[in-house]
Amino acid sequence: MELAQRNNVTVIGDGPATLVFSHGFGCDQTMWHYLYRHFTDRFRVVLYDLVGAGRSDLSAYCREKYSALSGYAHDLAEIITQYGVGPVIVVGHSVSAMIGALADRLVPGQIAAHVMVGPSPCYIDNGDYVGGFTLEDIHSLLDTLDSNYLGWSSTMAPVIMGAPGQPALGEALTNSFCRTEPDIAKQFARVTFLSDNRQDLVGLTTPTLILQSTDDLIAPVAVGEYLHALLPASTLCLVPNVGHCPHMSAPSACSEAMDRFLLPWAGEHVD
Amino acid sequence: MELAQRNNVTVIGDGPATLVFSHGFGCDQTMWHYLYRHFTDRFRVVLYDLVGAGRSDLSAYCREKYSALSGYAHDLAEIITQYGVGPVIVVGHSVSAMIGALADRLVPGQIAAHVMVGPSPCYIDNGDYVGGFTLEDIHSLLDTLDSNYLGWSSTMAPVIMGAPGQPALGEALTNSFCRTEPDIAKQFARVTFLSDNRQDLVGLTTPTLILQSTDDLIAPVAVGEYLHALLPASTLCLVPNVGHCPHMSAPSACSEAMDRFLLPWAGEHVD
Repeated sequence: MELAQRNNVTVIGDGPATLVFSHGFGCDQTMWHYLYRHFTDRFRVVLYDLVGAGRSDLSAYCREKYSALSGYAHDLAEIITQYGVGPVIVVGHSVSAMIGALADRLVPGQIAAHVMVGPSPCYIDNGDYVGGFTLEDIHSLLDTLDSNYLGWSSTMAPVIMGAPGQPALGEALTNSFCRTEPDIAKQFARVTFLSDNRQDLVGLTTPTLILQSTDDLIAPVAVGEYLHALLPASTLCLVPNVGHCPHMSAPSACSEAMDRFLLPWAGEHVD
Repeated sequence: MELAQRNNVTVIGDGPATLVFSHGFGCDQTMWHYLYRHFTDRFRVVLYDLVGAGRSDLSAYCREKYSALSGYAHDLAEIITQYGVGPVIVVGHSVSAMIGALADRLVPGQIAAHVMVGPSPCYIDNGDYVGGFTLEDIHSLLDTLDSNYLGWSSTMAPVIMGAPGQPALGEALTNSFCRTEPDIAKQFARVTFLSDNRQDLVGLTTPTLILQSTDDLIAPVAVGEYLHALLPASTLCLVPNVGHCPHMSAPSACSEAMDRFLLPWAGEHVD
């Protein structure tokens, strides 16, 4: 099947390097609306929908392939190979930050840098590791989601979004959750919230910008600090923001940090 | 022969990425003295002498191999492969900026970025291209250098250095020129000043910081602008400086620009 159709790939803008934006759980490429336009005059921008999300080809959803994040990572690696021109920087939100890291392992050297928005390598506390949730929390979350997906979405999406001053964003995320095919969302939620990618990140030296919200229910600051310590070439930027979607609720702070980080790839004139 | 001895390789500092400093004509690794220390607490730093310069193994100087910049580029590629840990950034002064670009072609993907200090892809004016010298200028320079190397060095080194407020730097460069074995210096001068590397740079998408002095006899501003236009992922930084060695006469301005450019590889904490 054609990649363009399978992942509903959009290419916009032009520049010497390519930014590939990869969305999170329950979202699709439209969630990048507030951020991506800042870059189209200096970068080639690639947006896409994970299979099962947005306007991707739902017939391509194969429960076996997508029973682990590696299935999504293979797709991302294909998109990078086919659509990347010049150095490729992957901008991944939440679970897609880990999908980006896994894709980096599949095509070493093809990803020049990562921008991870609210990343977490593991949501569950484990020994000294603080993920922010107990195993019971996560099972309870997944059980509720299984038994009443739409109810769970309506309750949880506004909480995940945070952004108390911008209620429209909570509604946007709720609608996005609710648009997702429930059976797919259920499997993707399990794959997302039960993943432990900490070992996959060890030794990853690709430059990485971690955009960590100061107040994020899903990815607390301790997780950002953990990733920063784990990834040797990582820059940790604390974004003043309540919620898990700073690319939507604090896009200016995100784009400013990204501009600083992306300077080597942007081709600019500095006096 | 062992690389360490052939190129008098020095490794100092530690960090997630490696900076390889490559010196220019008539210089050696000690010319980086004013700049490299700024980076050793955050980077692995590799210094070396081009074969024929400084404390390199002069017996390794082979007139055939070093009759073109490609001979030096092969050596640099070997150094990168052997000494690079994590992403490698080549910091090349003058002719070594081109040696770095040629090395990039030899080992594609192994150089994450270039910092070019006073680079010029071609010193001779040619059609619309402004290199800063006529063909006659260069032949006259090379003839004088051939007939009286020490005299030429004493006259030219202070002019090349510029830095009117820092006469010790002109003396340092003069001494460095004079330390170089004249037969080697004569061949290297021909290879350097007669090279035209413009075609070698076409399509090079590796991120590149161009540190261009505002007043440089050897590499005028027009050359920096030309390179910036030619290299799509290049950042042009005009360094207020008189002379061809801003890493010596304006090290703070250079290190500040480099800090901004190197942010993705340094692994820092930004609030």
